[in-house]
Amino acid sequence: MKNAVGRIIPDVIKGFKTVRPYAGPFAFTPEGRMAGAKIRSQRPGSDKVLESISQAIDAAGLKDGMTISFHHHFRNGDYVLNQVIEAIARKNIKDLTLAPSSLNDINDAILPYIEQGVITAVETSGARGKLGKLLTSGKLSRPAIIRSHGGRARAIECGELHIDVAFIGAPCCDRYGNMNGINGKSACGSLGYAMVDAAYADKVIAITDNLVPYPVRPISIPQTQVDYIVVMDSIGDPAGIASGALRISRNPRELLIAEYAAGVIEHSGYFKDGYSLQLGSGGASLATAKFIREKMIQQNIKASFGVGGITAPFVQMLEEGLIETIFDTQDFDLPSIESLKNNPRHLEMSASYYANPHCGGPIVNNLDVVILSATEVDVDFNVNVITDSNGVIMGASGGHSDTAAGANLAIVVAPLLRGRLPMVIDEVNTIVTPGETVDVIITERGIAVNPRRTDLINNLKGTGLPVMSIHDLQQIAYDLAGKPEPIEVSDEVVAVIEYRDGSVIDVVRKPI
Amino acid sequence: MKNAVGRIIPDVIKGFKTVRPYAGPFAFTPEGRMAGAKIRSQRPGSDKVLESISQAIDAAGLKDGMTISFHHHFRNGDYVLNQVIEAIARKNIKDLTLAPSSLNDINDAILPYIEQGVITAVETSGARGKLGKLLTSGKLSRPAIIRSHGGRARAIECGELHIDVAFIGAPCCDRYGNMNGINGKSACGSLGYAMVDAAYADKVIAITDNLVPYPVRPISIPQTQVDYIVVMDSIGDPAGIASGALRISRNPRELLIAEYAAGVIEHSGYFKDGYSLQLGSGGASLATAKFIREKMIQQNIKASFGVGGITAPFVQMLEEGLIETIFDTQDFDLPSIESLKNNPRHLEMSASYYANPHCGGPIVNNLDVVILSATEVDVDFNVNVITDSNGVIMGASGGHSDTAAGANLAIVVAPLLRGRLPMVIDEVNTIVTPGETVDVIITERGIAVNPRRTDLINNLKGTGLPVMSIHDLQQIAYDLAGKPEPIEVSDEVVAVIEYRDGSVIDVVRKPI
Repeated sequence: MKNAVGRIIPDVIKGFKTVRPYAGPFAFTPEGRMAGAKIRSQRPGSDKVLESISQAIDAAGLKDGMTISFHHHFRNGDYVLNQVIEAIARKNIKDLTLAPSSLNDINDAILPYIEQGVITAVETSGARGKLGKLLTSGKLSRPAIIRSHGGRARAIECGELHIDVAFIGAPCCDRYGNMNGINGKSACGSLGYAMVDAAYADKVIAITDNLVPYPVRPISIPQTQVDYIVVMDSIGDPAGIASGALRISRNPRELLIAEYAAGVIEHSGYFKDGYSLQLGSGGASLATAKFIREKMIQQNIKASFGVGGITAPFVQMLEEGLIETIFDTQDFDLPSIESLKNNPRHLEMSASYYANPHCGGPIVNNLDVVILSATEVDVDFNVNVITDSNGVIMGASGGHSDTAAGANLAIVVAPLLRGRLPMVIDEVNTIVTPGETVDVIITERGIAVNPRRTDLINNLKGTGLPVMSIHDLQQIAYDLAGKPEPIEVSDEVVAVIEYRDGSVIDVVRKPI
Repeated sequence: MKNAVGRIIPDVIKGFKTVRPYAGPFAFTPEGRMAGAKIRSQRPGSDKVLESISQAIDAAGLKDGMTISFHHHFRNGDYVLNQVIEAIARKNIKDLTLAPSSLNDINDAILPYIEQGVITAVETSGARGKLGKLLTSGKLSRPAIIRSHGGRARAIECGELHIDVAFIGAPCCDRYGNMNGINGKSACGSLGYAMVDAAYADKVIAITDNLVPYPVRPISIPQTQVDYIVVMDSIGDPAGIASGALRISRNPRELLIAEYAAGVIEHSGYFKDGYSLQLGSGGASLATAKFIREKMIQQNIKASFGVGGITAPFVQMLEEGLIETIFDTQDFDLPSIESLKNNPRHLEMSASYYANPHCGGPIVNNLDVVILSATEVDVDFNVNVITDSNGVIMGASGGHSDTAAGANLAIVVAPLLRGRLPMVIDEVNTIVTPGETVDVIITERGIAVNPRRTDLINNLKGTGLPVMSIHDLQQIAYDLAGKPEPIEVSDEVVAVIEYRDGSVIDVVRKPI
């Protein structure tokens, strides 16, 4: 069958629940009840601290075929996921579904355990490098499920993604399991993704290298949700967890894109006192922060709130009073972690609060402006952020489709060429974010506004910004780099791209 | 059948779920899964603010036979419950179960609506005055269910108490439903009881007199849990919500009891650096704060945390560094509200985190010392805080049985005589807290230690404290006031006293 973005989706995908084709960003109205974790109990005086990961795995009752989860706030400094999988493998437990909030290059270390059948299925936001190749290889027992951050929170909360055991790296934890991510040598800042796992997993194991006197303060994940605690020497490499302050790009192409993006925001009609914004952590996104900050100062405009993935330029704007409140689901650099720790206007939020479409309204619903990246966009404004030009998984869905659906103005920034390939093409190889929710594509060569947004097109007239049709933008790219060859794929579905509401917006087929 | 505290409980109680007799404070191990609210969804740009309570009742789909809830943080200043019930009555909706976290004298205003059948069942922590009399009268269609704060959270989380519509008075609320209790003319401080309702009710209606620009900060209850918002002129009477700073008693009897209590704590074996405590808001409890504070200063002992029901003397100890962290489920006076607002070491907590026995461990599990009150105690150390000497409901279960079960040292303070009646009797009229969980009874005439606690008896030897057997204490009371006449009751069960784990620890029978 063909879904609402024109993709042919198999009626049945082996190993995947009933296929519900994507029908539009808000076409689906959920029914039923939220899931519930197993009811726990703990007597006074009980001791949750176990000797080792091995003991915790036993205590949690982990068995063949179960689903385990992790959070990716430690990014490329994560020691938790790899060590837990290794400990599980030693117990000869097989056929697990691995459902982390995302995967990083450092997790390539688990490849042998996938080959050995310890892990036979993966549900996550995305993967890069060798893990991305593996997900695209068809070696798993069923297709990988790729979800957005909001879609993952939704799937967990409604029970579609049932987590048997959640392993939570805790930079700061007490003996009863209260934890936060802001204190300790492995501080990562917000624990926003892990909050959802902790609230819904049947068993929750905290893994810490910083066991502190009771009680932890502040508390990001409460003792009421934690079953066991394991102390390790180190749960992460600080250098890989957070960099120093992310700096604004000096790349002239990125700066030009950023200047255009700031111009589009300025004239969009949304740039008013009290507006709200999310910026990404990519070069052009960060650079946009610089330009929009200047415009805010000049025009005396303050943002009511900022959302993210938080970086130093955002924190600077918070401290300067240009942003009133920050909502933080993940921190990318040390200034952001420090800000979360010290600034009461910098609030931690869960992935569900951030982006879950099936709740009383996530904060993305209240966003005016979001700046997003893209691997490819097509003439229908559909965006791919998950597969590369060879059809191999090399990115992550993240909050892309969530914020695009929620924000009044979803801007995609990307260079018109990636290496030698055009970024604007006829049909993206994989749709992660439907064009209906994408408003503007900004490249260094020109700006295309979604024809649905006649209001925006009008607002940008006479601004001097190089607005053109998406087809003209594509033509420039094709003139420079030629039309790309289509990727040849087999019929085998290796990954399902879920839209945030759980419908299937696309599938990844195995490249030939 | 006879339960583990020797009470005869009917095998079947009409209108009450299957009777599970109380079998010991930790005898019951829960199974199954936590409940889930109906899955919500909200599109970007949706407007949750309705014109009136009437509109919100319609929007929430309230129907005959449903269960509605309220929180009691506004205490005797609450305008919300009464106005909502009045609005419901005008719609001719009948046969509702009223399940507020507690009831106050001001809620006597709803008596006509109970008489009219708008409300035909009540599940709450307790009631006083006319409402207490009504609950004891047998006029409801089924027995009232009395739960502790932890037991209520448990019942909601496991689905035994299913809330169809929760009405939440919000001293500070934004247009998407983020709220807190610390800002605004009707500030009440912590929203700890309401947090549980918001997380599990199918529909949540915020009622505010202080709609502020988006987003509220900090957020006690998130927009993700809120369906509708109604703005009223006033949701409460500040004078009834919170008093000025609660002051230490000058009543010599209370001061003597408090001095004994501080002495018992001092010599109990738990009075060490890092210990933890909960004090009540009654006269003798508050006075204990004064004496224990002095001992902490003298002996250079600091508490790791304090729990409550928070009052000014506790806040003073927080500010002086004598208490490191406060966990707050309810505020009794203005200094406590101010402290929650301004002191990052003063944390808000939900009733579930406070006391729910069926979670990964509530904070009462970590308590060393709690000071509790009593209407009556008996020679088995069982405590009644719910019915008076006529067998009429006039109190509330509150956190009594929760903290007694959790704390290492549960101290009950009470005058030996109440009016002309002895406080220590053969059998309390109604058991709320089982004697097995009560360690010490302190009166102005003497101190009785539970014989189970041989360690405490030893520790208190040679301290000069007037320790005696509970029977000796009773004899003093009987010598002064005579043995009280038993209350004559019919067979009709008018209220069920649930222990915190959902078992039946006692019933209230209709007095003749």
